[in-house]
Amino acid sequence: MTARLEKYFNAKSFCVVGASTTPNKPGNVVAYNFVNYFPGKTYLVNPRGGELFDKKLYKSVLEIDDQIDAACIIVPAKYAPLTLEQCGQKGIKNVIITTGGFSEAGEEGLALQKQMLDIMDKYQINVIGPNCLGLYSPALGYDTMFLPASKLKRPKNGPVSIFTQSGAFGAAFIDQLSRLGSGKWVSKFVSYGNASDINETDALEYVGGDPDTKMVLIYLEDFKDGRRFMEKAREISLTKPIMGIKANRTETGAKAGASHTAALSSDDAIVDDLLSDAGVIRVITWDQLEDCVLVFGTQPLPLGDRVAIVTDGGGAGVMASDMVSDCNLKLAEFSVDVQTKLDEIFPSFYSTGNPIDITGSATAEDYRIALEAAYNDPNVDSVVNICVPVIPDLDINEYIAITKEIAKRKEKPFVTSLVGGEEADFATAELLKEDIPVFTSPGRAVKALGMLTDYTKYLKKRGVDPRSILAEE
Amino acid sequence: MTARLEKYFNAKSFCVVGASTTPNKPGNVVAYNFVNYFPGKTYLVNPRGGELFDKKLYKSVLEIDDQIDAACIIVPAKYAPLTLEQCGQKGIKNVIITTGGFSEAGEEGLALQKQMLDIMDKYQINVIGPNCLGLYSPALGYDTMFLPASKLKRPKNGPVSIFTQSGAFGAAFIDQLSRLGSGKWVSKFVSYGNASDINETDALEYVGGDPDTKMVLIYLEDFKDGRRFMEKAREISLTKPIMGIKANRTETGAKAGASHTAALSSDDAIVDDLLSDAGVIRVITWDQLEDCVLVFGTQPLPLGDRVAIVTDGGGAGVMASDMVSDCNLKLAEFSVDVQTKLDEIFPSFYSTGNPIDITGSATAEDYRIALEAAYNDPNVDSVVNICVPVIPDLDINEYIAITKEIAKRKEKPFVTSLVGGEEADFATAELLKEDIPVFTSPGRAVKALGMLTDYTKYLKKRGVDPRSILAEE
Repeated sequence: MTARLEKYFNAKSFCVVGASTTPNKPGNVVAYNFVNYFPGKTYLVNPRGGELFDKKLYKSVLEIDDQIDAACIIVPAKYAPLTLEQCGQKGIKNVIITTGGFSEAGEEGLALQKQMLDIMDKYQINVIGPNCLGLYSPALGYDTMFLPASKLKRPKNGPVSIFTQSGAFGAAFIDQLSRLGSGKWVSKFVSYGNASDINETDALEYVGGDPDTKMVLIYLEDFKDGRRFMEKAREISLTKPIMGIKANRTETGAKAGASHTAALSSDDAIVDDLLSDAGVIRVITWDQLEDCVLVFGTQPLPLGDRVAIVTDGGGAGVMASDMVSDCNLKLAEFSVDVQTKLDEIFPSFYSTGNPIDITGSATAEDYRIALEAAYNDPNVDSVVNICVPVIPDLDINEYIAITKEIAKRKEKPFVTSLVGGEEADFATAELLKEDIPVFTSPGRAVKALGMLTDYTKYLKKRGVDPRSILAEE
Repeated sequence: MTARLEKYFNAKSFCVVGASTTPNKPGNVVAYNFVNYFPGKTYLVNPRGGELFDKKLYKSVLEIDDQIDAACIIVPAKYAPLTLEQCGQKGIKNVIITTGGFSEAGEEGLALQKQMLDIMDKYQINVIGPNCLGLYSPALGYDTMFLPASKLKRPKNGPVSIFTQSGAFGAAFIDQLSRLGSGKWVSKFVSYGNASDINETDALEYVGGDPDTKMVLIYLEDFKDGRRFMEKAREISLTKPIMGIKANRTETGAKAGASHTAALSSDDAIVDDLLSDAGVIRVITWDQLEDCVLVFGTQPLPLGDRVAIVTDGGGAGVMASDMVSDCNLKLAEFSVDVQTKLDEIFPSFYSTGNPIDITGSATAEDYRIALEAAYNDPNVDSVVNICVPVIPDLDINEYIAITKEIAKRKEKPFVTSLVGGEEADFATAELLKEDIPVFTSPGRAVKALGMLTDYTKYLKKRGVDPRSILAEE
């Protein structure tokens, strides 16, 4: 069965209904996006007629003498039913309605949404929205996000597909990903707003089957069809990781959500169990989402839970070790060969156990020796590289080069954290430019590794080889 | 009784034993610091004699014809006993030994430290260290941190005193604070390393009584004298907040700590209870420490737990509300006047409950109205200002100006979080420049507020008016 969203993304002809000649207005932005980036045919509709971006402005979809595969409606809520009716008459089966002012906006809006549902039913139209950003795929030149690129930066093509109930969350996170590392992160983005028709499960079904989606990131406040969602998640999580936020965890959150996308909270402990059983990695904070993208988007899965830590700061090593324990990871015991080598090479005041503490006397070469020993040890499943760069003999550029070299190998997960001031910031920025996962604290680095390892554990429990997932092409 | 550390910080004459003529070597850096910044008399000692920074290099402390109040010994571990013996003969009662290679470095080092203890005993010398960074106070021109300012940036004078068992942690955090906001954060910094004599309780006693210390930040891996520490903390937490990290929480962490500052872990649940009973706000992650400095270092204490949230992004509001609940805070119910005003001014599709959601249609003026209403409401104890800046009609510079204006009032805690890409980063940086607390996620902002409110609750429980603490001068 074809996922419903496929019909949108595979459209060969697209119509922007409500194309505006006023720069930076939503209808202007979406028209611009499609005229400039969409490889298929683009039609623009505005009841006043005229021209926009060297294209004819049709006065109605009914005037267009071609088949339209999908359309985006960007007209004020009160005109939306008439516009949708015309789409139905024209035979357009896939419509995105970005406009707000429906079920999220009191009784009048609710009545309007009800009217729309009747039209959808009558013509068998698929609808995304209303009250949403719609769809975005940089690889497909598909972009109904109605905020201009000067305001909302677009990330480039990459491994992550995202679907979100909250448009504002989606916009903020898309903007955030545009400046994370290379900015090459997003495959498909789906903002479905009020979910009058297409909902979270449709989105999941589509990205689950999409070969370009390597990982799925979600932001949900409620489920329109929780049972089907969990079924789908359970199936898809065997082939790609699904992770993200289910907000409305608490009564307080639910109260806030009620007036937002008309979401109802349910018992969160049950939701938590169901998500976990379906293999969905649940995170709580916004920061963790970026961490998810950084590790799942760049690292192979670990084959087990044995972590090696390399540090020049004892305290940072202790804090990271505490977090290893918090995340149900283990400190690896080095193999005899590796241990012997470390003991031989390093001075006696370095600590050659795990964590390897090369102390304030560390040089970049010491980092190379320690990191390579840990990385090459078959008893080690993943490596945490912690650096306090203020020490006297460490050349930060050499340290960066060594970290990049090991990060390139991608044989096992490798995460880094630099702590300190300007020099730490500099190295962090340099490494992130190449999409090497670096975190603002050792604990955050270990936690990211913990999420990655949780997924390995889930796959093993379900009899799936973690090497089959997230592998380098 | 005078706190032991007072004798160090009040020294009128100081001697650097092991002053080095090699640029950027520890003995060179400390000599430079004291010659250039210490307002008292500085003497430099190097067995080879000669001159350094236009000062005579005495061949031994015994050659100096003046009273020396305090000294820093920066010689290789094996020469330390002889040097300390000479300090004893000279009558120097307060010594900092920064050098490593003692109890933390195997049997030989342990024997050396034992030898030092005998000398300390014989001459009744106070010792900080060994294996530490020693002391730093920008206001007092006191700086034994042996890393050059080109490597380790120094924060300027401010409200926070810090003591730490791990020197590397201390160095990294000091460096980090130097680039946080104005960089005006540190009153006294104490790194006591192996704690052969002066330990965490001495440090706490001193900063507790120091009128320039408004808040105390700690990093501990173990207690040398846990009972006395808790007693002191219980007393001091009634007049200034104490917060920070007690690492070695887990067996894994303890294993890492054992080879570091020879720390032994104890039952963490007990430690947790004792700290909480003594009013110490315990944090787990490094990131939270910076958050502590940002809120406790800049905000008044809330008088209660009622929080107002203002946002233009529904999802962000829901996540923040969930965190309000997680942190045992409450969403405030606005007073009738405020509620009526909000309902009148804002369009019906804005949500005027709490959170106030001014949606993607928000302008900076909407922010002003919502933030001022919330801030002025007597039913509100603290305000969370959340902004997703990608929306079309928000002038980011105006938003920044409005946020600054309210932040200046300091009548109640006011925390901000901007989420997104470049524009969010820009506003965050602009606000941080003026030490306005801004956080990378709404959840983090609420959590910071939660810590602040926890302290209010503690004070109230102990019968102390929170208005007496952290008040603006």
